[in-house]
Amino acid sequence: MDASPNGIEFIVYKGSPDRRVVQGITHRDHLNGDEVLIRITHSSLCGSDEHYLGVDMCLGHEGAGVVEALGADVKTLKVGENVAFGYQRSCCGSCVRCLGSLETFCPSRGFYGFDEMDIGSMASHIVFRESFVYKIPPSISNEAASALMCGGATVFNVLDMFSVKPTERVGIVGVGGLGHLAIKFAAKWGCEVIVFSATESKEEEVISWGATEFHVTKDRDTFEHVTPIDHLMVTTSQQLRWPLYLSIMASFGTIYPLTFAEGDLKVPYLPFMTSGLRIQASIVAPRVICNRMLSFAAFHGIGAAIQKYKLDVIGIEQAMDDLREGKIRYKAVLSAGDQDEAREPL
Amino acid sequence: MDASPNGIEFIVYKGSPDRRVVQGITHRDHLNGDEVLIRITHSSLCGSDEHYLGVDMCLGHEGAGVVEALGADVKTLKVGENVAFGYQRSCCGSCVRCLGSLETFCPSRGFYGFDEMDIGSMASHIVFRESFVYKIPPSISNEAASALMCGGATVFNVLDMFSVKPTERVGIVGVGGLGHLAIKFAAKWGCEVIVFSATESKEEEVISWGATEFHVTKDRDTFEHVTPIDHLMVTTSQQLRWPLYLSIMASFGTIYPLTFAEGDLKVPYLPFMTSGLRIQASIVAPRVICNRMLSFAAFHGIGAAIQKYKLDVIGIEQAMDDLREGKIRYKAVLSAGDQDEAREPL
Repeated sequence: MDASPNGIEFIVYKGSPDRRVVQGITHRDHLNGDEVLIRITHSSLCGSDEHYLGVDMCLGHEGAGVVEALGADVKTLKVGENVAFGYQRSCCGSCVRCLGSLETFCPSRGFYGFDEMDIGSMASHIVFRESFVYKIPPSISNEAASALMCGGATVFNVLDMFSVKPTERVGIVGVGGLGHLAIKFAAKWGCEVIVFSATESKEEEVISWGATEFHVTKDRDTFEHVTPIDHLMVTTSQQLRWPLYLSIMASFGTIYPLTFAEGDLKVPYLPFMTSGLRIQASIVAPRVICNRMLSFAAFHGIGAAIQKYKLDVIGIEQAMDDLREGKIRYKAVLSAGDQDEAREPL
Repeated sequence: MDASPNGIEFIVYKGSPDRRVVQGITHRDHLNGDEVLIRITHSSLCGSDEHYLGVDMCLGHEGAGVVEALGADVKTLKVGENVAFGYQRSCCGSCVRCLGSLETFCPSRGFYGFDEMDIGSMASHIVFRESFVYKIPPSISNEAASALMCGGATVFNVLDMFSVKPTERVGIVGVGGLGHLAIKFAAKWGCEVIVFSATESKEEEVISWGATEFHVTKDRDTFEHVTPIDHLMVTTSQQLRWPLYLSIMASFGTIYPLTFAEGDLKVPYLPFMTSGLRIQASIVAPRVICNRMLSFAAFHGIGAAIQKYKLDVIGIEQAMDDLREGKIRYKAVLSAGDQDEAREPL
């Protein structure tokens, strides 16, 4: 497993038609000029991995590891450095966001799995283009970085890309992998953080992460005494109960669906229009924001609540079972083993 | 009809339970400190007036006239000046937009008809607060100003409030009262203007107003060769055929529904999310933008295509019939009569 003239071989954990995780070996002849070979130390698990479980492609799109080999043109990374990577691994380079160095979702290509079936974070190694590899700040472990690369980037993207102000009230619907990070980031962003959760079971934890208010939503058709919300992040995978939440949005407020759901968004026309609301799709953070997210997390000491698994077939299947059953508190991280990362000076 | 100690009386044209226009007389004891009495020279007709036809309230929310009397505290207007007014006639003064002098839709109050049933532009006179009365630039007639105060402000609001760039492509769905003004304003804003209309009947006119492209939508399930649209204004009163238009939106594009429709907005989840789109409700322009709209229209010589009616019961009913039957090309303006406006130096 080295970028030798004989090529590179590494282990990948893939989905399969009967939705079992399968271990395979993949091969690359060589590294292209700007490519980096990373030995993966950690991969996190995201709710959307479930969508790929039935497909013959390497699972996982958020991970961390150690640089093991470099293509001839790589300039900014060194062998032995701790690095992280997320959903985006390429871009078309032609849209206004690319040109403005805020490139992000490129519908035609450039994401995990869509162009190369053996590229994913649930593997022994991964090959990534240099400019989509993020250096991990020294105060953050590979395990912690891995847990931030999808959910952390997704919720931070809302705050950063859409210029949320610390004077605004940020609502968060759902307390899971995404939601618990949204609470932590929004609190450190300086905002009042208002959390909506089905039951009261998570209230104490939610408040300890910096939330200002906690509202139980089960059996509730209206809210009373909720000061209007300027930005509402929807982190649940179910459709939002729109009428319930539209009534507490501030005029000109924005609602951000952050996950995929089946079917149509169905938004009651009249209250949406009369309050001048906005619905903003927000899914994948561009690299400039991934880097800022890591810096912000390092500066403020923000990290996910992690539940640990081993990065192998059994570990992945166990983590996915637990996620399906709602047993993860709050982010599953799969670890490759003992010698997890390089912390020696390079 | 003067602001004498005996009070003010004026004619109003109101809706009624059987949806006929009814003439009435209304009375005000006096003008409050910041109120202005305007003799109405012109009122325009908007599709949304139809919603009020069954209600016992004065119709119309876009007009122009001549200042006839002033409350004791009015500082910026003079008797005899030509002025215009629109949908917004008050504001709560407490939301962030008010404080930032960009106050606009205030859900609780402040709009035509919602707080005072005898205030509307289909009347001989109207009483308005000073700061919601707009001076008409000298190069614009009262008739022309009246025709801009709802539709013109609504489409200009999209360009101005949401910072549309002249380098961006603006799509406009529907060519009616709103749509034809959207084309003219967006063209002068410097944008490529892409028009979607059911049939080819209006193509020549649309191009003459500055549109760059014209697409017929009838019997069409997909578009071919449409370069992606950055901002899409939906000016039709029907629901948008979302799948048809989502396919031609640029990544991070915005869709603006500009009219009210029944039921739910139903947006296909997956293409909305994967393109990072935004749906922005936009209805009533704040006064700062109404003033800028009039200045911009004066500078660029933008005016509605006007179909004329008389401002009386018969004229209003005829105009509303014609609007219902799709016979207006493109904006109905009701005129009070000969001595329409003051054009002498004050």
